[in-house]
Amino acid sequence: MKRLYNSPDAVVPEALEGLVLTHPELLRMRPDPTYVARVDAPVAGRVALVSGGGSGHEPMHVGFVGPGMLSAACPGEVFTSPTADQVEAAVRDVDAGAGTLLVVKNYSGDVMNFEMAAELLAADGVATETVLVADDVAVEDSTFTSGRRGVGATVLVEKICGAAAERGEPLARVAELGRTVCARSRSLGFALSAGTVPATGRPSFELADDEIEFGVGIHGEPGRERRPLESADALTDRALAAVLADFDQDDLSGDVLLFVNGLGAATPMECSIVARRAVRTLGARGLRVSRSLVGQYMTSLDMLGVSVTVLLLDDELTELWDAPVRTAALRWGR
Amino acid sequence: MKRLYNSPDAVVPEALEGLVLTHPELLRMRPDPTYVARVDAPVAGRVALVSGGGSGHEPMHVGFVGPGMLSAACPGEVFTSPTADQVEAAVRDVDAGAGTLLVVKNYSGDVMNFEMAAELLAADGVATETVLVADDVAVEDSTFTSGRRGVGATVLVEKICGAAAERGEPLARVAELGRTVCARSRSLGFALSAGTVPATGRPSFELADDEIEFGVGIHGEPGRERRPLESADALTDRALAAVLADFDQDDLSGDVLLFVNGLGAATPMECSIVARRAVRTLGARGLRVSRSLVGQYMTSLDMLGVSVTVLLLDDELTELWDAPVRTAALRWGR
Repeated sequence: MKRLYNSPDAVVPEALEGLVLTHPELLRMRPDPTYVARVDAPVAGRVALVSGGGSGHEPMHVGFVGPGMLSAACPGEVFTSPTADQVEAAVRDVDAGAGTLLVVKNYSGDVMNFEMAAELLAADGVATETVLVADDVAVEDSTFTSGRRGVGATVLVEKICGAAAERGEPLARVAELGRTVCARSRSLGFALSAGTVPATGRPSFELADDEIEFGVGIHGEPGRERRPLESADALTDRALAAVLADFDQDDLSGDVLLFVNGLGAATPMECSIVARRAVRTLGARGLRVSRSLVGQYMTSLDMLGVSVTVLLLDDELTELWDAPVRTAALRWGR
Repeated sequence: MKRLYNSPDAVVPEALEGLVLTHPELLRMRPDPTYVARVDAPVAGRVALVSGGGSGHEPMHVGFVGPGMLSAACPGEVFTSPTADQVEAAVRDVDAGAGTLLVVKNYSGDVMNFEMAAELLAADGVATETVLVADDVAVEDSTFTSGRRGVGATVLVEKICGAAAERGEPLARVAELGRTVCARSRSLGFALSAGTVPATGRPSFELADDEIEFGVGIHGEPGRERRPLESADALTDRALAAVLADFDQDDLSGDVLLFVNGLGAATPMECSIVARRAVRTLGARGLRVSRSLVGQYMTSLDMLGVSVTVLLLDDELTELWDAPVRTAALRWGR
């Protein structure tokens, strides 16, 4: 393994520290149990948003903490769920009395630990709602998942629910919007090579020189099939075909948000090449890409690959997407 | 070469097309000669900013076109200077009569072609000023350069001069600010592995498993030396020592902007780990990191490595850095 690390054990805490040190105006970190919170949380009168998951997917979730998105994020070790303790402590810190939305990717450990935290909090009178993200159309069950895996739509849920919370929507409405985003999103990713797990120093799976993993999970879980490497356009179309086939076909019209996500080692040029084809192919299907997000937002260590997410927009989702956000990884103003 | 491309020849035009298709609210592209411009350029009463250079360094420069930064960017082929034609056409398009600042990285081809364009424009009464960026302390002359290479400070010059132009400063003042940024910036990069040139499908240089190129150029040019691979902290300190040694030592106090730039394949975690050490080491030298930029902003295809840039801030540079910007790659509001 030839990487820019100090020691495999220190990768997660040092990366967190680096993020917080370079964003002191946005972030504060608490250790034991570890979480990263907005400096200004709790924000009076506003629903809080807490997410988390295994590390190795940066900038998700810690890079999405800030005004207009998450109140706090709970990072686990690499590819390991955060503990219930972390989630409970984070919610207690950032909840302002208006309740907290938990955004949970559908992996068994995450689901269990967020549920446990929610029960402990409920016993103490802290209201939570959970949005479970399960947008990956690749497989129905997977290594760490019962049901579909949660992938790219998580970023969209966090952005859109964060904007709703920021404008003062109540907990039930913020949760409803999150579920709407989930219902209107589908994703699929593919890998040309695996990420290298710091603890082992080895790729999490092996592919031949002319082979890809189609439908790969963000922890290197197997996808639908191993296939021959094809051109960027062919792979993009193949991913989009799987994504679009999974929607109710009557819903496939109008404006969409296209999210082309680099899984770690895809370069900006590669992400743009995929985005180009995706815009054209969606256009040919009568879908207009009116909003897009292209870049590395949910990685899998240094995996070479991308995932493609399509969200069917409506006016409210578009307005919430466009609302200002100020985080380490996603930032725009009016 | 296992990459997400269609054909090596198509990498640059397809990536440009993808960028423009996903940012129609910001960008328009013109072919033959090729450049990417702000949709709203020329902007009456404002100095224009035009930059450019070889492709393979995305998001630089095309990702920095938009309000508060560049008016237009001229991308060459991979690692190849843009032609004088491209620069001339871009300036004619975006110049609003208040003159145009040319931001040029110090590579012989770039310098020659921007100079030629400036002469053609001058003959036609279009005023330009040039800021030549040469911030890389690694070596004094290099493969494509007489004098120092221009690297990370280019992004800072484009942001700060773009903000100055946006607030209505005249050409001479915008150029002066750009030269101030150059005078107050130093950079150094290092690579654990080389980028893969699309046309050849091969890495631009070879390193042993335990070896790095210290002071590497963004086209894979040799640096100061090949050294053993060390920890992220040791490499960060080594790069910073070279950067800081090059400043007038009496200037080393107060606030700095730290720019940790991923060269293509460095993950967000790796960039954060480097940033963590850099903030601490600069702090120990009496320099406070009051602003930072951490991520992939000036890549070298899929090179695994980072560059570190330090800019000595003052109040005006800080204010211009903080000014709103809206581009594909760099975006924030008030």
